Amino acid sequence: MKLYDSRRAPNPRRVRWFMAEKGIEDIEIVDIDIFGGQHRQPDYLAKAGLPNVPALEMDNGATITESVAICRYLESVYPEPNLFGEEACEIAVIEMWARRAEMMVSTPLMMAVRHSHPAMAAIETQIPEVAANGRATAEKGLRVLDRRLADSEFIAGDRVTIADILAATGIDFARMVRFRPDPELVNVNRWLAAMMARPAAKAGV
Amino acid sequence: MKLYDSRRAPNPRRVRWFMAEKGIEDIEIVDIDIFGGQHRQPDYLAKAGLPNVPALEMDNGATITESVAICRYLESVYPEPNLFGEEACEIAVIEMWARRAEMMVSTPLMMAVRHSHPAMAAIETQIPEVAANGRATAEKGLRVLDRRLADSEFIAGDRVTIADILAATGIDFARMVRFRPDPELVNVNRWLAAMMARPAAKAGV
Repeated sequence: MKLYDSRRAPNPRRVRWFMAEKGIEDIEIVDIDIFGGQHRQPDYLAKAGLPNVPALEMDNGATITESVAICRYLESVYPEPNLFGEEACEIAVIEMWARRAEMMVSTPLMMAVRHSHPAMAAIETQIPEVAANGRATAEKGLRVLDRRLADSEFIAGDRVTIADILAATGIDFARMVRFRPDPELVNVNRWLAAMMARPAAKAGV
Repeated sequence: MKLYDSRRAPNPRRVRWFMAEKGIEDIEIVDIDIFGGQHRQPDYLAKAGLPNVPALEMDNGATITESVAICRYLESVYPEPNLFGEEACEIAVIEMWARRAEMMVSTPLMMAVRHSHPAMAAIETQIPEVAANGRATAEKGLRVLDRRLADSEFIAGDRVTIADILAATGIDFARMVRFRPDPELVNVNRWLAAMMARPAAKAGV
């Protein structure tokens, strides 16, 4: 297998963090220079289909993009420790929380960064109202996570799962626009500190 | 099992369409009156956790929300016809296309509807720039799907999958704001006509 990676970008970091939690070290890492436009070159597009990073060349030779699809595939090859759930009901609960983390917090924060950080003006037609809406949506989403984390050590339950990785990488990326969870969200802040203290938090940054 | 459903809303329709493709008829359907605020009542929130519909009470008694998590759980109980993939590489390709369909087309179109349709003003602080950005993002996403559908009968391959259901329900919902795919996207329009002609397209509307 071969992972097409890019430092400092949030979606590649999800996969690197996921791999680090599993101790995966035998996949070749190929660095793609996004700011130099390497992801738009014909040879990369021929493999990945879209100018997106990360991409994974799977065991059957096909290449996929989409961080969560890549992580789920890696889970099938490297099942331990389990990060997507063991049986159908647990898998469903973890996917529910992973989607909430992504759609209510991480994607809105990525929109906030893309539509407001000066360095992103090169790759995005920035719309201030879209940035503001992203930030406001994430603030609401974090209140939902805070209530959940009052009852639960991690987002989907009593152990780290893909849901925690999606939320933590999204929140940490938004430091680029000086975003921090409200200090009043004590459960989110306790959980975020625990996530950022994990060795895997250093992967891919 | 019990499905908490709501007519005319796009996320419940995904699940109803998915169930219809599988011929699932033995799940109790409970209608939730969203415009009457039933999803915000304490007894619904105690089950679903968030004021979101659809929700599924699973075989173990726990209730989940999130349409895609619900569909994946249903796939484990009713495996035929397969809509999420059979082995790991196929599952990964289908998830990749499902995410592209959702993030590049359906979610942006839902944002366009929520932020511009008069009936949605009751449930959303509408921001015209967010609506316009959603529509523009979806138009770009549909060009990606059109290139894909030039080579492929359905979005993820040669049969209907969850990716097609996510894309078709999103596009059809956006008729509320008079959105139609550009007629020049002949592959998207051929595929959409085929999807809307399926008996399952009538489920949940």
